[in-house]
Amino acid sequence: MSSNTLPRRLFEMTIGFIGTGVMGTGMVQNLLAHGSDVTVYNRTKAHAQTVIDAGAKWADTPAALTQQSDVLISIVGFPKDVEQVYFADDGVFAGAHAGLTVIDMTTGSPETAKKIDAAAKKLTNVAALDAPVSGGDIGAKKGTLTIMVGGDKDTYDKMLPIFQQMGTSISYFGPAGSGQHMKMANQIMIAGTMTGMTEMMVYAQAAGLDLKQALKTLAGGAAQNWSLDNYGPRVLQGDYTPGFFAKHFLKDLRIALDEADRMGLELPATAEAKHLYEVMVDSDGLGDLGTQGLIKLWWQK
Amino acid sequence: MSSNTLPRRLFEMTIGFIGTGVMGTGMVQNLLAHGSDVTVYNRTKAHAQTVIDAGAKWADTPAALTQQSDVLISIVGFPKDVEQVYFADDGVFAGAHAGLTVIDMTTGSPETAKKIDAAAKKLTNVAALDAPVSGGDIGAKKGTLTIMVGGDKDTYDKMLPIFQQMGTSISYFGPAGSGQHMKMANQIMIAGTMTGMTEMMVYAQAAGLDLKQALKTLAGGAAQNWSLDNYGPRVLQGDYTPGFFAKHFLKDLRIALDEADRMGLELPATAEAKHLYEVMVDSDGLGDLGTQGLIKLWWQK
Repeated sequence: MSSNTLPRRLFEMTIGFIGTGVMGTGMVQNLLAHGSDVTVYNRTKAHAQTVIDAGAKWADTPAALTQQSDVLISIVGFPKDVEQVYFADDGVFAGAHAGLTVIDMTTGSPETAKKIDAAAKKLTNVAALDAPVSGGDIGAKKGTLTIMVGGDKDTYDKMLPIFQQMGTSISYFGPAGSGQHMKMANQIMIAGTMTGMTEMMVYAQAAGLDLKQALKTLAGGAAQNWSLDNYGPRVLQGDYTPGFFAKHFLKDLRIALDEADRMGLELPATAEAKHLYEVMVDSDGLGDLGTQGLIKLWWQK
Repeated sequence: MSSNTLPRRLFEMTIGFIGTGVMGTGMVQNLLAHGSDVTVYNRTKAHAQTVIDAGAKWADTPAALTQQSDVLISIVGFPKDVEQVYFADDGVFAGAHAGLTVIDMTTGSPETAKKIDAAAKKLTNVAALDAPVSGGDIGAKKGTLTIMVGGDKDTYDKMLPIFQQMGTSISYFGPAGSGQHMKMANQIMIAGTMTGMTEMMVYAQAAGLDLKQALKTLAGGAAQNWSLDNYGPRVLQGDYTPGFFAKHFLKDLRIALDEADRMGLELPATAEAKHLYEVMVDSDGLGDLGTQGLIKLWWQK
């Protein structure tokens, strides 16, 4: 009986996982591949079938899932979905218990991360981390995600072996909300590469340059960037399928600029990028395209 | 005597070179190292001493230099300098002669390139290319420049061996002005990476993130770019010395946006970048810093 009073070893931890979309599916598959015990919940059960077939169990509500889990991980869509998952009547906190760690890996607002952390701290022996990711569906599938973590450092240290089942670049950035802040910094940087790439291609085409040669020339110099390397060729092929949905990118830029406001910062280039994605997503209804579809603001006209 | 009527072989071509600034010095050194016969002119003769010591000869005016040269190369500062060098009373065209090829490698406006080309075409057997570069002073010194060429294709083919003495990525982009257009496309892309990097660092610092760790995390993912890799660490060290002068970058963005206007294009993100560099250069007087000094709009306040 005494073994029950000892901390259970990592591989004996039961993991609850909420959100089996394109990201979550890959992440759960990697947890299962590493021998973890995973039970899942998803708003639409049919979308969990892939991971159930791969060995995950099913729970009917976030609360029921949380009750039976040592570690509860979530990665869902929008900030309002996170609020719902954690604070609804059948949400995560309705199933919280001593010994629980919750990890929200949805990209969302630092404010929400702090709110979840505060709710956890009101309970006895419940811990929370915010741990958004980058690397896309391919990174999720391959287990090569970048994971940016905020929360208590000792909780981070305990959860590191779980993160290592899903990612290859895992870093701790500070107290609750810091993981989300780092993800926002990431999106601010990408706002620059995506708008720059888009306007560069618009200009180059109008000037009669060979775009394929232009991409090749830029790739070898000071203008080189990941977006250009990866999305430039897709744009040339007219491939606007999402690596990352424009509507999600717009959501992130809104969060980033709200946070900047809160910190008293003006970020004019990021604000212009947000404006352009607003036209694309809200006015032109192109939010289900990938972020590289921004060029349709020029090329469809 | 008959040999005089044959085209002279490349290494027998005499090269005139105008502009021995930080870029021109490295380029002339590479021409000399490849055995080329180079005579130089520079507005301030003292600044030509390095290449004269390395074996270059001196001419007293652009016209005199052009008279004795088969190929006349220029790389000077601003568009007005290019106009002066080519069209002044003692300028390049005052010394033009049959068999001459002029190559302006200054980053400037496609309009000026077309004007030089038109002036050349009015003469008998005079050809012109526009061939701006990227790769900075290090690329100039190492002979690893990217060279973007516009003009007649057969002239490009003839001059390629000379370009190969100065650069490693050399591409032809189309008729007169196309090299400059490609360089403008390059600067539009960099406007995105520089503003994105700057606002990312401003946000990350305000959010209390470890900037060194942030740069490391971003370098491994979708936000990666050359500016971040090269200028991010310099900003962290407070090193704002120019790899590329902010005032020159602003000049380029103005040309790019003027050209975009002429083509009926709106480029809002590039326009915002231009606005930020205007504040830095014109209002704050920081044009002699490198482009990474943009962050001083936030950090000095």
